[in-house]
Amino acid sequence: MRIDEIPTPAPIIDIDALDRNLELMAGRLPGQTLRPHVKAHKCTALAARQSAHGHTSFTCATPREVIGMMEAGVGDELLLANQVVDVTRLRAISNAREQSGALVHVAVDSTETIDAAAQGGITHVVIDVEVGMPRCGVRPEHAAALADYARRAGLEISGVMGYEGHLQMVTDVAEKEAKVADAMRQLRQAHDDVGGAIVSAGGTGTHTFHHIGLDHPTGVTDVQAGSYALLDTQYATLQQGFEQALIILGTVISTTARRCVADVGLKSLGMDHGNPTIADHSVWFCSDEHITFSSADEAPRAKVGDRVAVTPAHIDPTLAMHPVAWVVRDGEVIDRWEIDLRYW
Amino acid sequence: MRIDEIPTPAPIIDIDALDRNLELMAGRLPGQTLRPHVKAHKCTALAARQSAHGHTSFTCATPREVIGMMEAGVGDELLLANQVVDVTRLRAISNAREQSGALVHVAVDSTETIDAAAQGGITHVVIDVEVGMPRCGVRPEHAAALADYARRAGLEISGVMGYEGHLQMVTDVAEKEAKVADAMRQLRQAHDDVGGAIVSAGGTGTHTFHHIGLDHPTGVTDVQAGSYALLDTQYATLQQGFEQALIILGTVISTTARRCVADVGLKSLGMDHGNPTIADHSVWFCSDEHITFSSADEAPRAKVGDRVAVTPAHIDPTLAMHPVAWVVRDGEVIDRWEIDLRYW
Repeated sequence: MRIDEIPTPAPIIDIDALDRNLELMAGRLPGQTLRPHVKAHKCTALAARQSAHGHTSFTCATPREVIGMMEAGVGDELLLANQVVDVTRLRAISNAREQSGALVHVAVDSTETIDAAAQGGITHVVIDVEVGMPRCGVRPEHAAALADYARRAGLEISGVMGYEGHLQMVTDVAEKEAKVADAMRQLRQAHDDVGGAIVSAGGTGTHTFHHIGLDHPTGVTDVQAGSYALLDTQYATLQQGFEQALIILGTVISTTARRCVADVGLKSLGMDHGNPTIADHSVWFCSDEHITFSSADEAPRAKVGDRVAVTPAHIDPTLAMHPVAWVVRDGEVIDRWEIDLRYW
Repeated sequence: MRIDEIPTPAPIIDIDALDRNLELMAGRLPGQTLRPHVKAHKCTALAARQSAHGHTSFTCATPREVIGMMEAGVGDELLLANQVVDVTRLRAISNAREQSGALVHVAVDSTETIDAAAQGGITHVVIDVEVGMPRCGVRPEHAAALADYARRAGLEISGVMGYEGHLQMVTDVAEKEAKVADAMRQLRQAHDDVGGAIVSAGGTGTHTFHHIGLDHPTGVTDVQAGSYALLDTQYATLQQGFEQALIILGTVISTTARRCVADVGLKSLGMDHGNPTIADHSVWFCSDEHITFSSADEAPRAKVGDRVAVTPAHIDPTLAMHPVAWVVRDGEVIDRWEIDLRYW
């Protein structure tokens, strides 16, 4: 089957671009020094490909992702880098863990999340430390008390994590280096108080700014990058050597002398980072089922029935909208991957 | 089951608010003068409720929506108000139509879409007329030639449609009245040249500005409103008497002295109209799986484990992200509706 025969709109993964991204990252952060974040793609087939590049521990954002990874038998160590108070879902993780034998760590940042973890049969937790981004995590000075509380609840402390999400898109190298180091100094301060084998942090935008190894004063054990695999237009601006490996394939359904309309709209695109892009074209706006665009000089180039590649500004919510992705090499469909870790 | 027991994040429909919206609209545009747009909710159970309020003809945006409506036996007349060149999907519509006996009209605006409709076994088409919004449709002066082409292809012309989407959010009443009238004058000009029983236009934002009946010089036969049923924060600003009947229910998973974080993020919210809202709180930002917010005076009110109602800025892409919606009355779950018209 050729790419032109795929019903649209449809997410298309360029397998060679993906493999080049995986190889580049595995060279920089081999094995367990990368803990690929599956929330970026929610696809066990893609995670298996990351595993084939040597990574055996993964990061997840939802119970569904943790359980799906165990069911698929991908990875032997999973970190749920998110707070969960739903005891039913935590219990489901524990049950799946007993079946699979994987090691599972769950992030906690409050007595409530610790209580829920203990009630849900979770055995290992990491203390989530807030290192500057106003989201989850405790401030470093409160990590020790929380770890004590967790130990009293019968949980084992695997270590700490902290996500410097606010620094991912900083472009000045010296500024980024200093700020990441400062954030990691806070994380290490918490780790000094808490102990455990794991000091996990980072993302695609900061992965080259992390020192690996606890010998370094701001070093971490692993980086939680996810977006590097498929990339998107926002991360592409950082020019880290990765390629955009995912597009949403559309079909042109209407044209005038000045504009074209394709069938890629708000229900197939994550829009929080703004409009998607179309190479050599200017995107006017997106509607529920449409994208209106023109060629750079406003002369029409596309005809009704032509295919168009729409590159989403933000991969993660985009792929989460689609049940399957088509895997393509040189215009030929070679596989169809279920986006099987969707929902919660 | 109580609302507090629903696993989060989850879309929650307030059935009484929905019914009040349906009743208000059915009073303004009874029976076939409203052609409810199912793209707003993609849910046959909700469409059946619209049908119970007297509407028997519906608008759809995708082949999947048309086929799903016929499979569910809701409505006896369906207008696919969108261009389709995928002959396989058009053929699937034709096959489903033969089974169901429903009347199906498909929008066309080019020789290519007419050719595809004919090849796909479609019998009835409407000429989609561009009335000022730069998206699909032909200019009124080209409608006659296109209708002739369609007739030569063996298709029956059911009439015309034109969507004045660019006028939905105009707030000045006199300006809106004049602009809607001007757009409808263009649509009627096309109808004069084309014929057929249908002159379909409009949406929730303009529904009170349309005259019903072809006796009026700018009148239409029916209005294609969809968002009125569940509403969203954008349309709510128009103060048309409808209530917001859908929220995404979340759980607070992390708090500090200044902020709260709940589990409602970019993968459960359409973000093209901007951030969602939380009553009496200020939304800071959304991440893939999180919403960070604070109470108006920045003192924390919510505690970890509390439930929070997040109102999406744009309903249509939000609901399309969820497999089911929970239907609630007075805090009690009374039903669970599958969002069964998702995808294409």
